[in-house]
Amino acid sequence: MDGKGMDALLVASNANILYTTSRFFRGYVYIPRDGEPLWFIIKPSTYESQENVIHVRKPEEIPARLLEMGRQLPGSIGLEFDSMSYSDVERLKAVFPDAKPLNGSAPLRMARMVKTAWEIDRMREDGIHQAEVYRRVTRCYKEDMTDVQFQIEIERVLRLEGCLGYIRTSGNLMDINLGSVIAGDNADTPSPYDFTMGGAGIHPSLPGGANGTTLKPGQTVMVDMNGSFNGYQTDMTRVWRIGELPDLAYRAHECSRSILRACESMSRPGTPVASLYNKALDIARHEGLEDFFMGHRQKASFIGHGVGIELNEMPVVMARSRDTLLANMTIALEPKFVIPGVGAVGVENTYVVTESGLECITVFPEEIQEL
Amino acid sequence: MDGKGMDALLVASNANILYTTSRFFRGYVYIPRDGEPLWFIIKPSTYESQENVIHVRKPEEIPARLLEMGRQLPGSIGLEFDSMSYSDVERLKAVFPDAKPLNGSAPLRMARMVKTAWEIDRMREDGIHQAEVYRRVTRCYKEDMTDVQFQIEIERVLRLEGCLGYIRTSGNLMDINLGSVIAGDNADTPSPYDFTMGGAGIHPSLPGGANGTTLKPGQTVMVDMNGSFNGYQTDMTRVWRIGELPDLAYRAHECSRSILRACESMSRPGTPVASLYNKALDIARHEGLEDFFMGHRQKASFIGHGVGIELNEMPVVMARSRDTLLANMTIALEPKFVIPGVGAVGVENTYVVTESGLECITVFPEEIQEL
Repeated sequence: MDGKGMDALLVASNANILYTTSRFFRGYVYIPRDGEPLWFIIKPSTYESQENVIHVRKPEEIPARLLEMGRQLPGSIGLEFDSMSYSDVERLKAVFPDAKPLNGSAPLRMARMVKTAWEIDRMREDGIHQAEVYRRVTRCYKEDMTDVQFQIEIERVLRLEGCLGYIRTSGNLMDINLGSVIAGDNADTPSPYDFTMGGAGIHPSLPGGANGTTLKPGQTVMVDMNGSFNGYQTDMTRVWRIGELPDLAYRAHECSRSILRACESMSRPGTPVASLYNKALDIARHEGLEDFFMGHRQKASFIGHGVGIELNEMPVVMARSRDTLLANMTIALEPKFVIPGVGAVGVENTYVVTESGLECITVFPEEIQEL
Repeated sequence: MDGKGMDALLVASNANILYTTSRFFRGYVYIPRDGEPLWFIIKPSTYESQENVIHVRKPEEIPARLLEMGRQLPGSIGLEFDSMSYSDVERLKAVFPDAKPLNGSAPLRMARMVKTAWEIDRMREDGIHQAEVYRRVTRCYKEDMTDVQFQIEIERVLRLEGCLGYIRTSGNLMDINLGSVIAGDNADTPSPYDFTMGGAGIHPSLPGGANGTTLKPGQTVMVDMNGSFNGYQTDMTRVWRIGELPDLAYRAHECSRSILRACESMSRPGTPVASLYNKALDIARHEGLEDFFMGHRQKASFIGHGVGIELNEMPVVMARSRDTLLANMTIALEPKFVIPGVGAVGVENTYVVTESGLECITVFPEEIQEL
């Protein structure tokens, strides 16, 4: 906020209310550059009174309340240009007519990129739960079931493990239920969304993931199901197979693991994020697997992303990234391959960036397992 | 668009891309006041070529493409001020620097309020699937299970019936997985969200619905689980009980049904939407049930809402509504009561407004059923 000349931030998006308060209410979090944050709460109307809690019916009441409390009105105010609607931002600009409106999304995104110890603990918990669910994936399978039926059983195991059943995403480029299961050639259906992998889905209104493919020998089944158990989430992908696969599939899967090992060993605070992407592409090329790398008919331009409260946080691990790794970032790396006629292969792990490298918090065997 | 002097609409939100094309892609739908709409598609890059499909990499390419096709650039352009981010709208304004930007959200919302015959057919399908799931709710119950465990089994039945597993909502006032199951006193936990009912949820990051309450005799269990099977959705609530309930609970439930019958018989194209709310409140007051009507510790200010692609469409059935019913609107009516120590009661149906009244498309017995 200092660097931007921002006197105060007014947080209103669901994800950032959760980030700044570790709970959710309908209202606004007012964060002055100096002094304690205030919570202006609309709902629930019964929210417990505390020193920093002010009940309001609408945001237009905020300036008068600030003055009553002896606070100065801000000369400039950060609003979430990237995550609040145009109408909502215009309304909030009018609430502070004398304050210069600034984009508050960027500093929040930067702050969220680096996790606190408390946040990393939450994500460790998620990783443990998610691995526990993945341990039970094989038991969800029955012969001749479809990818959708398989996914439904995994969803049930996730929910019984405590998964909240809701994935928060940033922006409007992702519509998703509890994650994605893609089997066989459905992996080669390009997605309109910003996921690395595609899949046709079961209806054109939600064109992603499982499409009703019957699980058959010679196919891979890629499981990328959600791990949000406490408002944070880990992101993890493993691959199962039915019967034997062509050598190319095993080779591409091992290449994904080699890419992860290379990224793990080269990553330190200060490492350019783009170098991870470039290293991954180099390895895939060297193995002659470029045609299948990050998709086949359509390719994703990134191999990983920050993750936390939302599935898609900063940084994005892509060639044109200008970010560098920072200690306590949490990133998911997902070098994947789509093999026509077989399906998707590859591993995704969520990592914490530490001084000595990447610490994996989605600990689960990486080999392709048989269903 | 005529009334607003809007030369063209540029649709970019997921819900409105679905509405205007009956499918989903990443890109923009350009709707001129006169002439055929054009689809500017970013992803999937493999989207089949058609006369109205133009592949672009970014929205900045749109004006040049329009000119190449011999189209005039618009003098004014509608953008989705209410559903696109401030940054996205500013970017699109700059794409058409000479066009006057207008709020395109309002005409889209008005158009979507009244469904086409095709849309109503989709919603009828949803209603049939949703009722089929509700027929199997009793079988999801086992003694001593929690509300969360019960909900998980209902989610599984929903998904096996073909539910897409994703609820589209408008605005940022709803975070929801597949709906809500609330049992006993959890019904009296006020919600920060714009749902009629509350519930604590299982984690403060998603404070709504089931909270892990063990299902016990003397409680109601209200099931309000999603019915989106094809991009549209119906909204339906029924109540189950464990053992016997106090008379007050049965009486309030019958009052909800009386309210629905009254609304059904008074509703015609032209009926003020507010009159439905006022009638409902009158009936509740007359029965001495006002204290429990639409919540107890915190009350919702509406008894219903439009529904379709999104869960919360126009109109909102509330006292200060200025809308009137129109033929082929689809609305959900949900007069509900929260009885302390017992739980929530009441019925929700989705209706089509016809010339002769309301046609219910969520046909399922309304009585409280025993688990």
